[in-house]
Amino acid sequence: MRKWFECVPNVSEGRRPEVIREIQNAIQSVKGIKLLDVESDSDHNRSVFTFAGPKEPVKEAVYQLVDIAIRRIDLREHKGEHPRIGAVDVIPFVPLWDATVEEAIVLAKEVGEHLANTYSLPIYFYEDAASAPHRRNLSDIRQGEFEGLAEKMKKPEWKPDAGPEEPHPTAGATVVGARFFLIAYNIYLGTTDVSIARKIARAIRASDGGFAYVKALGFEIKQRNLVQVSMNLVDYRRSPMHRVFELVRLEAERYGVPIVSSEIVGLVPLDAIVAAADHFLRLENFSKKQILDFQLLKNE
Amino acid sequence: MRKWFECVPNVSEGRRPEVIREIQNAIQSVKGIKLLDVESDSDHNRSVFTFAGPKEPVKEAVYQLVDIAIRRIDLREHKGEHPRIGAVDVIPFVPLWDATVEEAIVLAKEVGEHLANTYSLPIYFYEDAASAPHRRNLSDIRQGEFEGLAEKMKKPEWKPDAGPEEPHPTAGATVVGARFFLIAYNIYLGTTDVSIARKIARAIRASDGGFAYVKALGFEIKQRNLVQVSMNLVDYRRSPMHRVFELVRLEAERYGVPIVSSEIVGLVPLDAIVAAADHFLRLENFSKKQILDFQLLKNE
Repeated sequence: MRKWFECVPNVSEGRRPEVIREIQNAIQSVKGIKLLDVESDSDHNRSVFTFAGPKEPVKEAVYQLVDIAIRRIDLREHKGEHPRIGAVDVIPFVPLWDATVEEAIVLAKEVGEHLANTYSLPIYFYEDAASAPHRRNLSDIRQGEFEGLAEKMKKPEWKPDAGPEEPHPTAGATVVGARFFLIAYNIYLGTTDVSIARKIARAIRASDGGFAYVKALGFEIKQRNLVQVSMNLVDYRRSPMHRVFELVRLEAERYGVPIVSSEIVGLVPLDAIVAAADHFLRLENFSKKQILDFQLLKNE
Repeated sequence: MRKWFECVPNVSEGRRPEVIREIQNAIQSVKGIKLLDVESDSDHNRSVFTFAGPKEPVKEAVYQLVDIAIRRIDLREHKGEHPRIGAVDVIPFVPLWDATVEEAIVLAKEVGEHLANTYSLPIYFYEDAASAPHRRNLSDIRQGEFEGLAEKMKKPEWKPDAGPEEPHPTAGATVVGARFFLIAYNIYLGTTDVSIARKIARAIRASDGGFAYVKALGFEIKQRNLVQVSMNLVDYRRSPMHRVFELVRLEAERYGVPIVSSEIVGLVPLDAIVAAADHFLRLENFSKKQILDFQLLKNE
């Protein structure tokens, strides 16, 4: 059993390289942590750190990040295009390998309580860690931003889940949560008729009766004379990529339109790739343990 | 660039666990080496060690293995079902990741020369490291076994490639070579007519005009009421698994027979699985770097 968690904290600092570097160094100094990505945007004045590891190192890395952010960031002076309510705006935890969403929820709550107690920082739990349905969506929690937070917190439905009932003077509040790994997946269709992409998006997405863990929209890709079904696969184990591909192919066939290609944006778990190969090759009794690279790279 | 080599030495000892254990411990003691598998068979009186690592550690592990085998094995007293000419019978090197077959050939020759010089051990190079076409096949080199080796070596066409022109008194001779990674791949067809499996095997194998890097045979699988096209994919990059699957599917369709399933026996490189998913999902611009697990596990 290898229980790892990915953590993707969003920090309200995208302009001072020395602060971003300080956070990056702190994360990398935690033994057992793999820093996967750091993205900073000065217009947004925001940085996103992606790292992963076992539970305890992930906690330690988050605590180090929060400690630096709270010391170095003053939201009263913060300007940027991206909405935010906290110096550390949001901390999502994603279960990897043998870890479950339930364990990510426990991790999110432990981290949230610890931060609330240590820094007198108000905490909201969101997504799968939400304490009520109206708190699931990040954008609803963030509505009003740091500047409107003190007023918002006075409403009973926006009382924080942990910590004081007023914003931290310089660090606002932090949204902490758990969700499953998301695959950003696009399929390109050989037509210029965007209505076909939109019809297919409706056919396959949860909100219109399609796959339960698929969000989808149809777009025109003018420079390529194609249309795109743009998707978020929010649980690739239960609504797998290859099944989504096959249904889009069948639906497109009904309009006489072929799939030209598909595209995975960003990272994808090996499981999802293996499941696709397994499906199309009709493999029997195939195990990830048979993958040579996996045997060679595992640090056991 | 990550240049690794897999090495699969076959040692003529399958009955004395203490000798097998001694070799296993020696391999595992080499820093940088991953021991993937040890298979011993007492009927064959033979053990196969599978390990991998960068060039220098792989050399070191081979040298340790040979040193123990030569000290502990006396072929004059060796009996077993499996043909053999040496205490260390055969040492194949397989390039992994960024390593090439050419580099595996260089490695094989360096190791062969070193063993010849160190132990006065005659060496034959085989497969891609062979010095002549009649020396490519292991079974041709091994013909006559240890017992017939002294006579065989007197023939000019069987003069060793390195070392003395007579067998080592207790260790015989060793066959050293380089080859690409082999995938053992079977496809099951929904018929009991084995002639269909045999016709398809002929259609797809190199020896009858099919894919250049595929060997294939047709078999009846009585207990499942199926037939099997049993294959060795000897270069999955050039004759890929997914293309083999698709051609078998088309050929079987011609007889009205479906593919029931397929099966990978043993290890498969991640590249081959990714290539299959890439093909069937029609991915564009997909890179192995996008695989999360790969990012997390790489020891850099």
